[in-house]
Amino acid sequence: MLNPFFKNHGPLKISTVIKFLGLNENSFNKDEEIKDIKDLHSSSENEITFFHSKKYKDSANKTKASFCLTTEALKNELPKNCTPIVVDNVLVSTSKITSLFYPDSINDNFDETATLISDTHFKDKVIFGKNVLIGKNVLIGENCKIGHNTIIEKNVNIGDNCSLGSNNIIRNTLIKNNVKILDNCVIGKHGFGFFPNNNENLRYPHIGVVLIEDNCEIGCSATIDRGSMSNTVIGKNTYLDNQIHIAHNVKIGQNSIIAGQVGIAGSSIIGENVRIGGQAGISGHLKIGNNVEIAGGSGVIKDISDNTKVMGYPAKNIREFLRENK
Amino acid sequence: MLNPFFKNHGPLKISTVIKFLGLNENSFNKDEEIKDIKDLHSSSENEITFFHSKKYKDSANKTKASFCLTTEALKNELPKNCTPIVVDNVLVSTSKITSLFYPDSINDNFDETATLISDTHFKDKVIFGKNVLIGKNVLIGENCKIGHNTIIEKNVNIGDNCSLGSNNIIRNTLIKNNVKILDNCVIGKHGFGFFPNNNENLRYPHIGVVLIEDNCEIGCSATIDRGSMSNTVIGKNTYLDNQIHIAHNVKIGQNSIIAGQVGIAGSSIIGENVRIGGQAGISGHLKIGNNVEIAGGSGVIKDISDNTKVMGYPAKNIREFLRENK
Amino acid sequence: MLNPFFKNHGPLKISTVIKFLGLNENSFNKDEEIKDIKDLHSSSENEITFFHSKKYKDSANKTKASFCLTTEALKNELPKNCTPIVVDNVLVSTSKITSLFYPDSINDNFDETATLISDTHFKDKVIFGKNVLIGKNVLIGENCKIGHNTIIEKNVNIGDNCSLGSNNIIRNTLIKNNVKILDNCVIGKHGFGFFPNNNENLRYPHIGVVLIEDNCEIGCSATIDRGSMSNTVIGKNTYLDNQIHIAHNVKIGQNSIIAGQVGIAGSSIIGENVRIGGQAGISGHLKIGNNVEIAGGSGVIKDISDNTKVMGYPAKNIREFLRENK
Repeated sequence: MLNPFFKNHGPLKISTVIKFLGLNENSFNKDEEIKDIKDLHSSSENEITFFHSKKYKDSANKTKASFCLTTEALKNELPKNCTPIVVDNVLVSTSKITSLFYPDSINDNFDETATLISDTHFKDKVIFGKNVLIGKNVLIGENCKIGHNTIIEKNVNIGDNCSLGSNNIIRNTLIKNNVKILDNCVIGKHGFGFFPNNNENLRYPHIGVVLIEDNCEIGCSATIDRGSMSNTVIGKNTYLDNQIHIAHNVKIGQNSIIAGQVGIAGSSIIGENVRIGGQAGISGHLKIGNNVEIAGGSGVIKDISDNTKVMGYPAKNIREFLRENK
Repeated sequence: MLNPFFKNHGPLKISTVIKFLGLNENSFNKDEEIKDIKDLHSSSENEITFFHSKKYKDSANKTKASFCLTTEALKNELPKNCTPIVVDNVLVSTSKITSLFYPDSINDNFDETATLISDTHFKDKVIFGKNVLIGKNVLIGENCKIGHNTIIEKNVNIGDNCSLGSNNIIRNTLIKNNVKILDNCVIGKHGFGFFPNNNENLRYPHIGVVLIEDNCEIGCSATIDRGSMSNTVIGKNTYLDNQIHIAHNVKIGQNSIIAGQVGIAGSSIIGENVRIGGQAGISGHLKIGNNVEIAGGSGVIKDISDNTKVMGYPAKNIREFLRENK
Repeated sequence: MLNPFFKNHGPLKISTVIKFLGLNENSFNKDEEIKDIKDLHSSSENEITFFHSKKYKDSANKTKASFCLTTEALKNELPKNCTPIVVDNVLVSTSKITSLFYPDSINDNFDETATLISDTHFKDKVIFGKNVLIGKNVLIGENCKIGHNTIIEKNVNIGDNCSLGSNNIIRNTLIKNNVKILDNCVIGKHGFGFFPNNNENLRYPHIGVVLIEDNCEIGCSATIDRGSMSNTVIGKNTYLDNQIHIAHNVKIGQNSIIAGQVGIAGSSIIGENVRIGGQAGISGHLKIGNNVEIAGGSGVIKDISDNTKVMGYPAKNIREFLRENK
């Protein structure tokens, strides 16, 4: 239930997959079917997974997937139920196969299905401004407001008592109840994830969504990207000030407060009751504990444990930083 | 004359106020009326004020207010003319009572009163683009231009010879003459001010405005929040580059120059002829003197006196910083 | 061929130029004509140039211009073919004369010529959203998409296979093939360039464009300013994340990757295959080599040579920085 939105175009025949990767298909049973692509841990029989680093050896040993994109060096770690498909670059191949299953997730062209709200059944339910557009596969709860020029692109669920301002663009997003989104935000676009490649980079699919929990407030001009293989989450009652950038797969706990112009890079996990001062930056793939305070302007480049106050670039214990910088 | 826009819903009976706070109303003369809420210094007879810290003892001793929200520990500092109303959290109670007087200031839902400019009398006076919207209580001077999709929400006064670009959203703002606002700005929204509270934060009212003086230029994608209990002010002939965030109650003096992506936190006062380099950040409640230069990327966390050049994080004398960082 | 867009209003009579500067015209042949204004190096006979610093003495000695704005102290460096016009402030005078030749480049009021795309011949060629506007002097190639509310103001060329999102505002820009521009960007406005002047700053003209090469991707909410006397360039296959600010005259090489909230100040030159982490800032007029990596949050204040990794503020060798900041 990662993403209720992107249609799985599977099952695909193994021969289709092998051909798409430009491999020799003779060693496979061409008519065997593959239903989906998932990570090592969550995949099942008749699904394909990927294994690109020794770090994940334990999960690889136990995977239930029937096929696995991997390398010559790693293939012997897979159990008997799992047929290795040896490729040069596992992540690039995974990206390609993911886009076969979920072709809609690869590009983020504007939503051509969006139509004026006054031409939809929402016109009697929602209080709306001028020029509001609604795409396909949108649900909106009771007592909601949507401001002028806001575009609810396809694949958006909005709960009850939500107030959206003007000039927002939202797609692939689940918004719970009592959420406020001010003006000029872009929420649910794919993240900045791709494989660098001279002359033409290779985008990888983003099949996650943005999930905004109850009672949140998102300030003006935020950009919140949807997840790639997981979701981007803003926890309950967390408030974001203006001009904040939240990258793909970031998860922020509940009751947190994030001041203006903060940026959080991809896949970092922020705890509950965290306070982040203005213009602070948090690198990707970090774990920030509960009840952490990060001073404005800090640059966080490693994990922070619970109940800690940090400051500086790189961020360190705030008392230490202030002592050193009188 | 803090805010010419928000309607005062007073006078309110003292019994209404007491009930709203969930207190016992027996000790008050129920029918007595309160006309307005103000700070200790500016309030008068038949008005209510608030007193939450010993710091303000001197003002409390002399207040002319008839009532004061305060604590058991502080109430004896008030003069005889002023009846204390003892509450657990003075600022939260002040916020609640302010919102009773000024209910329009508590939320910033989109302006439903905004209508196409071609349906207003401004159509013959202003040069305007497509899809321009104008809310209630708007005044526009001579020789102004308003670009495509710009929304002048309610409570905006614009002087003469102003050029507004496209996709702007403006409310609760006073714009003087010869002002340029480029594209994609959000000006006049409430600031990031609220009382943190698990499960559901409590917003406090913002009854101030944004005041933009003559000859200013505001770059693309700025966010300038209106004040809470005072105004946010951009002084005469001050220029802001792109992607700048100015928080509530900030005041910037005249002839200042602020480069791209700068952020100024709430209630800081910036002098005249100040130059701030790109991406610099200024913490809240600071006083930056006249003729100050702040190098790009600096993080200012304490007051800066007149005629000083600073750099670094935390910002210090620029010569000292550069000597230490060769 | 700096700018294919701004119309040269020359030739102008020398008497017009002299009068406009408030100088005595008696010493000039009033009817002589000047065709254009250019720098010392590229100007020719019957053109005017400017010379404001000894640094440019060599170019001044060899200029082919017929006239030169300069100072009393520098005028003797000019060759015989070039008549000096002595002024108090060479750059201010140059700005004034440039605006005489290119009056359209001095202000960036919204484009009144923009009209609904459905009223243009592009309606049969482009896939477009609601409320898309197209200004004068726009070309669009094959197989392009333009999202809702996007405004292509005057003077824009778009190549083939480009996908533009919603709520963008673009002017004075050349976009090559296979370019993606996500949502909410402002591209091609004048830069933050002006002469500070109490009470009323003096803007100088921006006669350059923004050039975005093949296969680029520009993230949400970018601001990219056009050049003043040269162009702003985003090289082939360079990707920009969200909320990035690129100032006027910046040039970025091909295959570079720039993460969220980065800011690059005016006239800096970034090499090929450069990677810049989130929130990094680069001062103006710098040269960053090829294959450089700049860590997130860094503040770069001097040139960086090829194949270098830097971090910190001010940015230094990354190993040195990390050793000092354990």
